[in-house]
Amino acid sequence: MYTIGVDFGTESGRALLVDARDGRELATAVHLYANGVIDRHLPGDDTPLPHDWALQDPADYIAVYQNAVPAIIRQAGIDPHEVAGIGIDFTSCTMLPTLRDGTPLCLTAAWRQHPHAWVKLWKHHAAQFQADQINAVGQARGEEWVRRYGGKYSSEWFFSKALQILQEDPDVYAASERFIEGADWAVWQLTGVETRNLCTAGYKAMVIDGHFPSRDFFAALDPRFADIAETRMSTDFMPLGGRAGSLSAQAAAWTGLPAGIAVAVANVDAHVTAPAVRVTEPGRMVMIMGTSTCDILVGDSLQEVEGMCGVVKDGVLSGSYGYEAGQSGVGDIFAWCVDHIVPPEYHEQAQREGIDLHALLEHEAAKLRPGESGLLALDWWNGNRSTLVDVDLSGLLIGATLATTAPAIYRALIEATAYGTREIIDAFEQRGIPINELVAAGGLPEKNALLVQIYADVTGKPIALSGSPQAPALGSAMHAAVAAGVYPDIRAAAQVMGKLKPEVVRPIPNHQQIYDRLYTDYRTLYDYFGRGANDVMKRLRQIRREVVGGQS
Amino acid sequence: MYTIGVDFGTESGRALLVDARDGRELATAVHLYANGVIDRHLPGDDTPLPHDWALQDPADYIAVYQNAVPAIIRQAGIDPHEVAGIGIDFTSCTMLPTLRDGTPLCLTAAWRQHPHAWVKLWKHHAAQFQADQINAVGQARGEEWVRRYGGKYSSEWFFSKALQILQEDPDVYAASERFIEGADWAVWQLTGVETRNLCTAGYKAMVIDGHFPSRDFFAALDPRFADIAETRMSTDFMPLGGRAGSLSAQAAAWTGLPAGIAVAVANVDAHVTAPAVRVTEPGRMVMIMGTSTCDILVGDSLQEVEGMCGVVKDGVLSGSYGYEAGQSGVGDIFAWCVDHIVPPEYHEQAQREGIDLHALLEHEAAKLRPGESGLLALDWWNGNRSTLVDVDLSGLLIGATLATTAPAIYRALIEATAYGTREIIDAFEQRGIPINELVAAGGLPEKNALLVQIYADVTGKPIALSGSPQAPALGSAMHAAVAAGVYPDIRAAAQVMGKLKPEVVRPIPNHQQIYDRLYTDYRTLYDYFGRGANDVMKRLRQIRREVVGGQS
Repeated sequence: MYTIGVDFGTESGRALLVDARDGRELATAVHLYANGVIDRHLPGDDTPLPHDWALQDPADYIAVYQNAVPAIIRQAGIDPHEVAGIGIDFTSCTMLPTLRDGTPLCLTAAWRQHPHAWVKLWKHHAAQFQADQINAVGQARGEEWVRRYGGKYSSEWFFSKALQILQEDPDVYAASERFIEGADWAVWQLTGVETRNLCTAGYKAMVIDGHFPSRDFFAALDPRFADIAETRMSTDFMPLGGRAGSLSAQAAAWTGLPAGIAVAVANVDAHVTAPAVRVTEPGRMVMIMGTSTCDILVGDSLQEVEGMCGVVKDGVLSGSYGYEAGQSGVGDIFAWCVDHIVPPEYHEQAQREGIDLHALLEHEAAKLRPGESGLLALDWWNGNRSTLVDVDLSGLLIGATLATTAPAIYRALIEATAYGTREIIDAFEQRGIPINELVAAGGLPEKNALLVQIYADVTGKPIALSGSPQAPALGSAMHAAVAAGVYPDIRAAAQVMGKLKPEVVRPIPNHQQIYDRLYTDYRTLYDYFGRGANDVMKRLRQIRREVVGGQS
Repeated sequence: MYTIGVDFGTESGRALLVDARDGRELATAVHLYANGVIDRHLPGDDTPLPHDWALQDPADYIAVYQNAVPAIIRQAGIDPHEVAGIGIDFTSCTMLPTLRDGTPLCLTAAWRQHPHAWVKLWKHHAAQFQADQINAVGQARGEEWVRRYGGKYSSEWFFSKALQILQEDPDVYAASERFIEGADWAVWQLTGVETRNLCTAGYKAMVIDGHFPSRDFFAALDPRFADIAETRMSTDFMPLGGRAGSLSAQAAAWTGLPAGIAVAVANVDAHVTAPAVRVTEPGRMVMIMGTSTCDILVGDSLQEVEGMCGVVKDGVLSGSYGYEAGQSGVGDIFAWCVDHIVPPEYHEQAQREGIDLHALLEHEAAKLRPGESGLLALDWWNGNRSTLVDVDLSGLLIGATLATTAPAIYRALIEATAYGTREIIDAFEQRGIPINELVAAGGLPEKNALLVQIYADVTGKPIALSGSPQAPALGSAMHAAVAAGVYPDIRAAAQVMGKLKPEVVRPIPNHQQIYDRLYTDYRTLYDYFGRGANDVMKRLRQIRREVVGGQS
């Protein structure tokens, strides 16, 4: 009757209990990772990590199974034997080195002190050097994946991170019997059997039609890297909606669920959201908006789109091409604004009114009309993922005067991320992939109505909203339902269990006119600073690296 | 024995009592203007003023005579009969319309409700339309003043403001029997006799060799404007260091000084500072650094320098060419940062440590090495005065990341203003006017050692510091001493009464190397955004004007 979805996020994991017959959400619980994002020093160690590092502790993932899953069973008051299956989704590319039995290297006494033995979180940005090398070699060799990844392989992805381990800590590399996505590792812990899902394999690890790149390609990067796929990565790829295995006795003990129930093949938090908001056909793009934004759409044909993160057959839904694009800083940028440049008067006002600071800034920013702030920003505080794929780009604010306020900057940052989305839409549409409607999911649109309206006004597209505040977990529960045999496939599950809010946010025509003009200037600055006409952002980064000793 | 200098600033007026024999400063007092900068609505009137307006109340100037001057006499405990003369300096171009007897129009019941009847403060920025018109006509006619003003006449200057009065409130214009600089008006109030000083006449009102532009030029702007100089401006120009007249009985009653003592010809706060820091020969540039920065240097010959504010024979010192340049936002930009984008944690820390927020930010910013912030800014929060002379330019910050802090932005803003100074120095040096040393005066360098070091590192020049914290008032007292006959000329007075601190701040070579690289990028952005390659700043301003209804 019931299935469970577990969504592993950046700071916490969430479990959701769903009635598989109608998609009704019965209970949800969040478990915060004890060690969170590890970006200063390893737990119990004072040695500072270099800049741009972001690690996690795999023990925190197990704690989600141990705490959040029992909590929802208790909360709903159901008999755990009524649960037919469990599915999970994960941030990606989040990867780790393990022993052959799945033990994370960082949980062994021998390797615990080595930063490279820990989980590299998706936003670990210290492998740009390796990504540059991979791109140079891949382009020189005309590797097929270059085209599938919109021309560039990201520093965030699997082999950039693996190559960084090899180059910076060869001992850790040598001791790593497996390199694996966090998503697949989390399923492995449930089933006791190593599997790999087609989604992360395709989007992050260069797998095309079931094959990694050739040994020659890896050897061209580094002779020691030649056999990484053959010896350290399983090639037993499994389709989304498939059954990875059955719940092991150990995992049953952790979760309180019956051993033997279906465990779905792992998925990515963004990709699993598409069916959860009923996006199973071309023409609509899902924006999963949180600290960053991931854009997902499906297409009937294979197209090369500039700077897309990737296109993978069966990567979102079996039988379709799944396209992914994204923006590396969205909620993160608004949080930067709130944390770093909001003066006390707004903090005091928010406290007086009993609202959170984001809500107050949204309220103040909403008093400004489009164009009134006089500001324009490039939303590259955390680099650019699509369409430029360059982590060395940085944020720009233009138009400041002595009267510029923090809410005006907050609004300009929202607008900038909306222009960034429009840039992505344009790239798809230029390749003949239509986007008639957007669907907003994730934490941001839930909390910020101004943001959704600005996105509609800037892109000129109507925006539907996810009907569930925890769409990824719902999507995982849908995959669990398919794995458990409740539905024949994800499309069928989406029809019943997927959810949208009844209302659609539509563009306001006179806002659109102003934003069309501002977007023209955004594009000019985008090209000028992003495509080589003026590489000042890279020079600033370079000077900073020299000054702080190569750590940035 | 004693002379008095009165320095009329933007928010207050300061009186300084000086021993004319040795420059010793005996007492000083500040009187805050009751109505300060009037930029929201007229006193006692709720009608909002348009954006970019900045007015003042002339009654506030008289209150300085009535309060600050008696205060310093009391404070020093001297006999007022020992005071031989008084001199004043003023912000400029600050101008007002008056009746023939000097009564400000705004102090008459008939005109008090008219915003255009009030004093237009130097930073009244609403006459750009008129400045554009003046420049177009001046260039088309090949007017000599175009060359003397570095190619552009500013919206801040005399005829831009006067023409705005004519075009926007012709009734006020018709009722204005005199248009006069605040400086000359303040002297008029002391002597009872209208005079005009050569300094403001030359720098702000197009006077060359004792003559205004022709009637034809003014007529080409507007037929009603043809006779402005002939009928509403006296042409009895008086040299700096001259005696404008004697203290009137009324002014004696205001100040408590004896009637009949020498009153010096009026001067400008920036220009009067040069002799106060002993800059009476070529080779050194004085930077008077406050909310904005004014740069003054003297030369032996007449050169045309791009975007200088002006070159005027006898405009700083009789017998030399006085050059003026400047930056329209300096301390104002740092104050913007402090007021608008500093989060509570720094406010709390400053309070705990009992220091002011500027001091705390300076302290935090000083922990960063050059280049470490990764930021670069264009210092145009208040437009650009030199070398671009364009109030529609705006501020730019580039290089922001999720780790960017308020102190890092504060430092980037200081650095940006230093690059702006270097740009000015380069423009002079390209015309063969050497600048071997800088002298920093004004409120900023007194309070901010980091700023002085950054200016030295960025410009590569040693920086001497004013020996008096109230250099303009000291300069005015020096002019009073010359007017009273204590010294034959200003050069002689400067030798005795002028003051520098003993120490000189020198560039640090490895800082210079980093800043040379950053300055190269500053210049590229300066040209790109400031010289027409990308007029996005103007388009943002234009869109804002349309949205807010033409008021920006």
